[in-house]
Amino acid sequence: MSLNSTPSADRVHIGIFGRRNAGKSSIINAITGQNLAIVSDVLGTTTDPVPKAMELLPLGPVVIIDTPGLDDIGELGELRVKKAYQILNKTDIAVLVIDASLGMTPEDLSILKKIQDKKIPYVVVKNKSDLCSSAENSAVCPNLDSMPDASFHIDASNSIEVSTVTGYHVHELKELIASQAPEEDQDKYLVRDLLNPNDFVVLVVPIDSAAPKGRLILPQQQTIRDVLEAGAISIVTRDTELKETLSSLGKKPRLVITDSQAFAKVSADTPEDIPLTSFSILLSRYKGNLKLQVEGAQMLDKLEDGDKILVCEGCTHHRQCDDIGTVKLPRWIRQHTGNKDLHFEFTSGTEFPVDLSPYKLIIHCGGCTLNEREMQYRLKCAEDQGVPITNYGTAIAHLKGVLERSLIPVRGSLE
Amino acid sequence: MSLNSTPSADRVHIGIFGRRNAGKSSIINAITGQNLAIVSDVLGTTTDPVPKAMELLPLGPVVIIDTPGLDDIGELGELRVKKAYQILNKTDIAVLVIDASLGMTPEDLSILKKIQDKKIPYVVVKNKSDLCSSAENSAVCPNLDSMPDASFHIDASNSIEVSTVTGYHVHELKELIASQAPEEDQDKYLVRDLLNPNDFVVLVVPIDSAAPKGRLILPQQQTIRDVLEAGAISIVTRDTELKETLSSLGKKPRLVITDSQAFAKVSADTPEDIPLTSFSILLSRYKGNLKLQVEGAQMLDKLEDGDKILVCEGCTHHRQCDDIGTVKLPRWIRQHTGNKDLHFEFTSGTEFPVDLSPYKLIIHCGGCTLNEREMQYRLKCAEDQGVPITNYGTAIAHLKGVLERSLIPVRGSLE
Repeated sequence: MSLNSTPSADRVHIGIFGRRNAGKSSIINAITGQNLAIVSDVLGTTTDPVPKAMELLPLGPVVIIDTPGLDDIGELGELRVKKAYQILNKTDIAVLVIDASLGMTPEDLSILKKIQDKKIPYVVVKNKSDLCSSAENSAVCPNLDSMPDASFHIDASNSIEVSTVTGYHVHELKELIASQAPEEDQDKYLVRDLLNPNDFVVLVVPIDSAAPKGRLILPQQQTIRDVLEAGAISIVTRDTELKETLSSLGKKPRLVITDSQAFAKVSADTPEDIPLTSFSILLSRYKGNLKLQVEGAQMLDKLEDGDKILVCEGCTHHRQCDDIGTVKLPRWIRQHTGNKDLHFEFTSGTEFPVDLSPYKLIIHCGGCTLNEREMQYRLKCAEDQGVPITNYGTAIAHLKGVLERSLIPVRGSLE
Repeated sequence: MSLNSTPSADRVHIGIFGRRNAGKSSIINAITGQNLAIVSDVLGTTTDPVPKAMELLPLGPVVIIDTPGLDDIGELGELRVKKAYQILNKTDIAVLVIDASLGMTPEDLSILKKIQDKKIPYVVVKNKSDLCSSAENSAVCPNLDSMPDASFHIDASNSIEVSTVTGYHVHELKELIASQAPEEDQDKYLVRDLLNPNDFVVLVVPIDSAAPKGRLILPQQQTIRDVLEAGAISIVTRDTELKETLSSLGKKPRLVITDSQAFAKVSADTPEDIPLTSFSILLSRYKGNLKLQVEGAQMLDKLEDGDKILVCEGCTHHRQCDDIGTVKLPRWIRQHTGNKDLHFEFTSGTEFPVDLSPYKLIIHCGGCTLNEREMQYRLKCAEDQGVPITNYGTAIAHLKGVLERSLIPVRGSLE
């Protein structure tokens, strides 16, 4: 098992926030015991937030996101500060590093309020406590319990004095961060709640030019794993061998799960009495909002000339020539509308527009590389602004006329 | 498909070598178009070689390894230089960055000779060419074609002048690196050469505490993918449901492939007329040296009191309480020898001792996180020093008395 064996999206995301030179990078190095971030006295060494996957005991597999300084200046600096705030949308635990010798500044207070608003579990690190520990220094270190804003309160159990120079409280900081970890949601599964032990589940995995070399994409892996957890058996086949496979099995499968792109062929090759759904619909049920996304797909029937559609992908990848998001979906949607004059816009990675009002419909990827907090944030943005949102798989199922059928196995999640 | 979708071990590994301040980090940033490495005028900013997986067009998925400066000084510096040389063992393409204004130094020459000895494809980057381009500067830039060692030769087609300041030849450098890419070995497959279209292959995947959360380990993914490439079908089951699964399939499977840890139970539950092997044996056949490793396993019968055994793991992971390498294997081996007084030593990650003579036997993990070049290097070291080497799966199969059976499906690779 390698350190990278837990998918990034399933790791607890820890965002490290603070002003420039508060010591964010030193804190990261101290808690990870690694020299990950370059530590420098130069202001603003951390430019782009680069998430690092690692094992942080006693918590387990995490992603640590170092963020730009909250007091960064200039045009570029302002963009960076905005970036730091955006990171909050995927932060499961926020660590605010403040310089104990300077005390709580307006920048610290501002992000802490936002963290509390978003109900993100947090830890305030009073860093550089060594500067305050000796008698001659204590005079210059402000009392951090007296806040610049009297109405504001930090619970003592949320803050800790640390010195990365002396190693003071580094162990305790790790324990404190771990204690903020969200409880796992025990009631949500990708597929195992639909299965009984020894059930056969047929997984249809087409191999095309977009399939990653030598491995399986994450939703396929996660499904196979979850089927095993149910004590059931995955039968993994390409779409081209599905018919022959179904006829060779000694018993009827409980479920067929297909890659959305092969939906039409798979639906035709799967007898009506065998339930059929897609990886994408299961993923939406697991960490999206299936009901909202099924409703969103209905907008595909109501598009008009001049309508704008936003297509969002969670990962940044090198576009293939027949890319699903930028080429196939737009083509299928235009065909579906009888070649209406539609305008498609595309975002990828962490980009997600703040103002969604220009769009008649948002089509999001399954979000397998986004953590649940960020996926839920995006769904909520769309819902709040009244813009229909669906996902690739649900949209494709609707366009291919198999959405009704593919929802039957998961109808319990639509009520 | 995310950028991380190609397993690291299957990516082309590009090592960036050079003296401190030759501009290794600037070259990396220039060719990747990203601000990955912190660039600084301070000598020796790059400390630990941190491999970065990325897409480098026109080459595709690569791992870029920035290395410490070859002229680093002091005790720590010497260790770092040694580290840089070690990186050569996993380097598929070496990029030597020299400072054009200084010319080829003894350190540059020394590593270049090593690169040529190891027959690693390479590119020499004459960096900072902007310093030599103007008339007033040309006097201070030595002619790089006159080498400090007259017997030494760099082919002109292997070197290129670059300036990261002006962007001069950055595009051409990427093309030149790509042109050094090793050809893919088209004759080596994990399993597909053993299969026919529509064959059923049963994969036994036990779920224990060491199994990664929510996904499959790499050899399992790679096997499922390779079975699909053959037009065959994977039946994925836990060891506990194997018996029931075999009786429910409508036809006899071509092959059963098991995780090595479940070998004894799986062998008992699989009828003699169904061929059986393990992921580990397939992986050894694919990028190890199966014959050598099978011979190595015979040493398990000849161990004596006081013998030293080296257990090597390619990845660094948090040890589980019943860890296979450090706990289970030593226990099984001691039992096998009738509790002889054996001494086990353990290495993980990139550590691999130069002197293997103290050891009677080396047991290496499957090496799924190591690239083929590094795995082959380690096997060669053991073979050259006459120390028997085997791998976890082959050793376990031998200890459980199922090695003979599990080699039948791959006997063609043992001749």
